[in-house]
Amino acid sequence: METRVSSEKKEVIIDITRPTVLIGERINPTGKKKLAEALKVGDLDIVRKEAIEQVVAGADIIDVNVNAPGVDDVAMLPKAVRAVMEVVDAPLCLDSPNTAAIEAALKVYKGKPLINSVSGEEHSLQRVLPLVREYGAAVVGLVQDDDGIPKNADRRVAIARKIVERAEKAGVSRENIVIDVLTFAIGAESNSGKDVLEAIRRIRTELGVNMTMGASNISFGMPDRAIINNCWVSLVIAAGATALIVDAARVRPSVLAADLVLGRDRFARRFIEDHRKRQQQAQA
Amino acid sequence: METRVSSEKKEVIIDITRPTVLIGERINPTGKKKLAEALKVGDLDIVRKEAIEQVVAGADIIDVNVNAPGVDDVAMLPKAVRAVMEVVDAPLCLDSPNTAAIEAALKVYKGKPLINSVSGEEHSLQRVLPLVREYGAAVVGLVQDDDGIPKNADRRVAIARKIVERAEKAGVSRENIVIDVLTFAIGAESNSGKDVLEAIRRIRTELGVNMTMGASNISFGMPDRAIINNCWVSLVIAAGATALIVDAARVRPSVLAADLVLGRDRFARRFIEDHRKRQQQAQA
Repeated sequence: METRVSSEKKEVIIDITRPTVLIGERINPTGKKKLAEALKVGDLDIVRKEAIEQVVAGADIIDVNVNAPGVDDVAMLPKAVRAVMEVVDAPLCLDSPNTAAIEAALKVYKGKPLINSVSGEEHSLQRVLPLVREYGAAVVGLVQDDDGIPKNADRRVAIARKIVERAEKAGVSRENIVIDVLTFAIGAESNSGKDVLEAIRRIRTELGVNMTMGASNISFGMPDRAIINNCWVSLVIAAGATALIVDAARVRPSVLAADLVLGRDRFARRFIEDHRKRQQQAQA
Repeated sequence: METRVSSEKKEVIIDITRPTVLIGERINPTGKKKLAEALKVGDLDIVRKEAIEQVVAGADIIDVNVNAPGVDDVAMLPKAVRAVMEVVDAPLCLDSPNTAAIEAALKVYKGKPLINSVSGEEHSLQRVLPLVREYGAAVVGLVQDDDGIPKNADRRVAIARKIVERAEKAGVSRENIVIDVLTFAIGAESNSGKDVLEAIRRIRTELGVNMTMGASNISFGMPDRAIINNCWVSLVIAAGATALIVDAARVRPSVLAADLVLGRDRFARRFIEDHRKRQQQAQA
């Protein structure tokens, strides 16, 4: 099942037979003081720089989130989206908990964006799905509902199914849904990883939709986070996730290795090209 | 299904519900000139040193292989096994293509060893299985037969089944078989990884036996081998392999990360302990 998103000049296809798509996560002020301060005064230089750097590091889609205390999301998200469109060709992911900000960004976006996000919560389904339909976008579907984030695979699958069914009723086809299964930190929930992998496998089989994931949540609070994250991305890709929300500069080599050993990189071309690029960057 | 191997003082249990067992691969003269030269003149200092270092690095079982041109395997394997037993408590894996050398080593070994290996080849089944039975050992079963190493999952599963059935007929229970699925280099065979993972999943479901694998073959001939190997060990563990033949110093952190996210490391105790140990070693 192909999820297509695009900018004015570029299309990205998310599909289980293709290499894993990387959604660059770095334009997000959560935990980033400098970026938050800049956004408060309307300074978009860091946003532009992060957009360019992530594309260089191999991000296929750029997530744009400007949500921080003291920032007027509705005014700022379209400005940030415009700024990013000016400097990179990658399709964008319009990311806000505020539906009005999403709509303002949709109005200026050129192409077919990914919206981040709808959830299984009633108010979210009612507000976001009509926008997805109206603007012909694709949307990330967060596996949580009015009872919170589920703690077992059954409920994750059930919420994913509900989102897909409600989307289809609202005129949004399942090709345009990318389910985010959500992960608890493994340090807090020993079975979090197991449950999420089972949910991914079942959603892949039962619903067939594409899936994404913030790949670093799993290691929150742990030492050696890179070791855990690199292992985790391999496992979620093998289970059936097709687009990961990541810091591309850090995670890309492991993602390419997973694509390689899973038979999605003929003659190891992408892996070897990426190796050469990293070698050149290290020498420069 | 529990595979138990032991030394005089220590038992190691291989089982899908437990942390992955690491079989240290470094006592093997293939590609190691210094070790090969030492073995030719009967010098076992490197063997002892490698045994100790691997246990320090977290190897649970030590593979002992002295097979090199100019080395009398039948005389040398028991000597090497004795030397290793003197310096470490870990159970051993007696590794030789020569059945007479295996038998000579079995005679001096104290405990229940792992024999490496029997295969699906007729001459191997006939010679090795009676020894496994007679000495009450466990044995690695290589998935290859008189037609060579299979190139698809179906044939891998079929050969694994044949080994298990022949073993049971020879009085060796399947608890004492650890199947090695064998991997082609991904650079030569793009589907090698996919096929092997499918074979592991099917053998886990259909035969229920424990499985091992030389975890670095997959990346032979590729750049950035560590990135590929670390990804690969996560995938084979998730698929159902329970003991890996590895350079423990290099691969252990990724194996612990896989055990952690797969829910086999409650409260992340092993992962955090290992992190602290590595930090101390780095400071020392």
